[in-house]
Amino acid sequence: MNAIILSIGDELVLGQTVDTNSAWLSQRLAGAGCAVLAHVTVGDDQAAIEAAIRQAAGRCDVLLVTGGLGPTADDLTRQAIAAVLGVELELSQPWVEQLREFFRQRQRPMPQANTIQAMIPRGARMIWNHNGTAAGIHARLSAGEPGRPTELFAMPGVPGEMFAMFDRDVMGRLLARAGSAVILSRALHTFGLGESAIAQLLGDLMRRDRNPLVGTTVSGGIVSLRINARFDPRQEAEKQLAATEQLCRQALGDLIYGADDQTLAQAVAHLLTGNQQRATTNVLSVTTAESCTGGLLAKYLTDVPGSSSYFRRGWVTYANEAKTELLGVAADLLARHGAVSEPVVRAMAQGALARAGAAYALAISGIAGPDGGTPDKPVGTVWIAVAGPSSPDDVTARRFVMPGDRQMIRDRAVKMALTLLRFRLLGKPTPF
Amino acid sequence: MNAIILSIGDELVLGQTVDTNSAWLSQRLAGAGCAVLAHVTVGDDQAAIEAAIRQAAGRCDVLLVTGGLGPTADDLTRQAIAAVLGVELELSQPWVEQLREFFRQRQRPMPQANTIQAMIPRGARMIWNHNGTAAGIHARLSAGEPGRPTELFAMPGVPGEMFAMFDRDVMGRLLARAGSAVILSRALHTFGLGESAIAQLLGDLMRRDRNPLVGTTVSGGIVSLRINARFDPRQEAEKQLAATEQLCRQALGDLIYGADDQTLAQAVAHLLTGNQQRATTNVLSVTTAESCTGGLLAKYLTDVPGSSSYFRRGWVTYANEAKTELLGVAADLLARHGAVSEPVVRAMAQGALARAGAAYALAISGIAGPDGGTPDKPVGTVWIAVAGPSSPDDVTARRFVMPGDRQMIRDRAVKMALTLLRFRLLGKPTPF
Repeated sequence: MNAIILSIGDELVLGQTVDTNSAWLSQRLAGAGCAVLAHVTVGDDQAAIEAAIRQAAGRCDVLLVTGGLGPTADDLTRQAIAAVLGVELELSQPWVEQLREFFRQRQRPMPQANTIQAMIPRGARMIWNHNGTAAGIHARLSAGEPGRPTELFAMPGVPGEMFAMFDRDVMGRLLARAGSAVILSRALHTFGLGESAIAQLLGDLMRRDRNPLVGTTVSGGIVSLRINARFDPRQEAEKQLAATEQLCRQALGDLIYGADDQTLAQAVAHLLTGNQQRATTNVLSVTTAESCTGGLLAKYLTDVPGSSSYFRRGWVTYANEAKTELLGVAADLLARHGAVSEPVVRAMAQGALARAGAAYALAISGIAGPDGGTPDKPVGTVWIAVAGPSSPDDVTARRFVMPGDRQMIRDRAVKMALTLLRFRLLGKPTPF
Repeated sequence: MNAIILSIGDELVLGQTVDTNSAWLSQRLAGAGCAVLAHVTVGDDQAAIEAAIRQAAGRCDVLLVTGGLGPTADDLTRQAIAAVLGVELELSQPWVEQLREFFRQRQRPMPQANTIQAMIPRGARMIWNHNGTAAGIHARLSAGEPGRPTELFAMPGVPGEMFAMFDRDVMGRLLARAGSAVILSRALHTFGLGESAIAQLLGDLMRRDRNPLVGTTVSGGIVSLRINARFDPRQEAEKQLAATEQLCRQALGDLIYGADDQTLAQAVAHLLTGNQQRATTNVLSVTTAESCTGGLLAKYLTDVPGSSSYFRRGWVTYANEAKTELLGVAADLLARHGAVSEPVVRAMAQGALARAGAAYALAISGIAGPDGGTPDKPVGTVWIAVAGPSSPDDVTARRFVMPGDRQMIRDRAVKMALTLLRFRLLGKPTPF
């Protein structure tokens, strides 16, 4: 079974609203074993909506339409469906009564305009809306294969109303049609190596004819593996997904810091706060000394609820004299090597560790740009130091050249600092 | 002129990633006077990509493609374009050299897989990527009207790379093609009042039959006015846009902190560093003392290039003892009032101001949640203090209850702190 999702609205094609409905529906469809062939979005234009429905009708088993069911003149989805079906719109008496009841409960007169929301193409089925005034529409389009029409479900564009209508009414009909095959997904996240290096390590696991299928995506420097297992029945999908995940983990080892919604900061927090092996009284703490990242590292660490158990203080030492006065970095070091140098970033980490009494300290000093680069130290040059746990003398520093603009350089520097800490907590060398 | 936007990626049709690129591009295209006919999304499937390109080619002047230009086997956009054009892929020598340079700078070997990113369909133009390894592709598809081919621009799916490539290379070519009727846009940004309060202040300026049209959008708590002026010729659009902007500014006054790409931090930076009235030697500095925002305020202030002229140091005092040891907040105050209280946030600001020798200090202490709320101090309670410029005694504090989840509460608290500083720098009372 396959599907196309059609979203309707001027605000979407004008870019004023991001379409999140299609992603939500796609996830649900995957769970029902239904492959999504395409998302299509058109504006509030009846001819465009008709053309999109006609085009989809010949190509898919299921066409999910969202939007254009409101009460105003720019809501044209029901008219377009009627035109494609070649039928009139007719009043759904149960829905008119439901509308009257809706307004009566709110002690408001029902505006005449709302009556249009009870108009359904003749022969189509009205879908009940438990959360608003727009009835849905379920129709069969004959443009598909003979005997296998495309089933069209039109739902409101308001996410809350659409989610409820889909789950209450549409999902069950899709499952009945789909049989028992499902697509199960899992994401595994890495940071530190580029997409092609990860692909090289995965090798044949990324073959396009494989099931479960393994793909990679990059977002904010994070290279994620997506595993999609399509099997019948569900237990087989679960088994196969687990087996492929295992193979991916074997191929990438500790490069994988987390799965699904887990963030890098959460992975670090998990290691600091216990990892199931340490008593909760033995939480390890971390402190920060930041120059070019200006507080972003501390922000990442405190994104995690409950971070007060492992993060108690941090310094943003943007100017040289702040590094000296707050962290005890010798002015002499700064003068001789410059702020973006190994000796300075090591001294920052050591100073922070001693002053915070923390188990670990992270220090970052770099050139985020756009100005300040030199041939020796181009924009993007970042020194990162990790100190601890035994003493401030236990410190290592590495130099990186981060790509991109100021925001990207700062973001990647912070993720790299968290990654270096993560490997130190794992007690393993960084694999890059 | 009209356009179709084609997004490519399994993660999109599987609903694992929400497509934000299409909305971003749509906004840019509106600014170029270009109507967006449709958004289309297909997965990493060469036949599907080819079909989508062929279908669009006959229907639009411009086809913008994002995604599928990575180095791995599931990146098939360039192959699909070559197939539609009926040509071979050939190596772009300048881009291979750029790739080698990219990896050389990062002191890493270039994986063989990346070479594919320099493959361009014969006869097409390579578009330079200043932020990554995927070169873009600019080609003409002949399926459109004779003499008016569809121009195809294929760009990376990574938003940062795509934004930069579009603005550097593609936008200018679209403007050149657009002719004389244009839509000119301007955004004016406010923070502090809700969308409906802003709409009330704007009154008739928001009428839907007005040209220039004034609309409001909300993103991250920032309420923005979008003015769209559609006129021919361009000079008329410019004149009308300026006139409507003037009316909006009269209606909202100092609530407007900036226009277009200007951020709240930039607006504050502008006031600190000169505002054209002060000599550059008289730059005012600001320091930060953060509890619940954990470094995010310092991060915002240092987002601005050149921020070292007004920001030199900041403290993240997440734990109570850090507030005492680093900022001199009396342990007694903390014990009596709790960390989220007026006396403590005032003492944080005063302590930071004195220790940093800055002109101004901002302090934030709040409950970001999800835990830690009480009936008296629910999750979202945030105290913000501004100290300076004359002395640490010159300090004011206000209490807010921010809506949303942990991330939202932290973000809104920082924007409010910047807003309070902004009004203090303007020498005016906060209008809310």
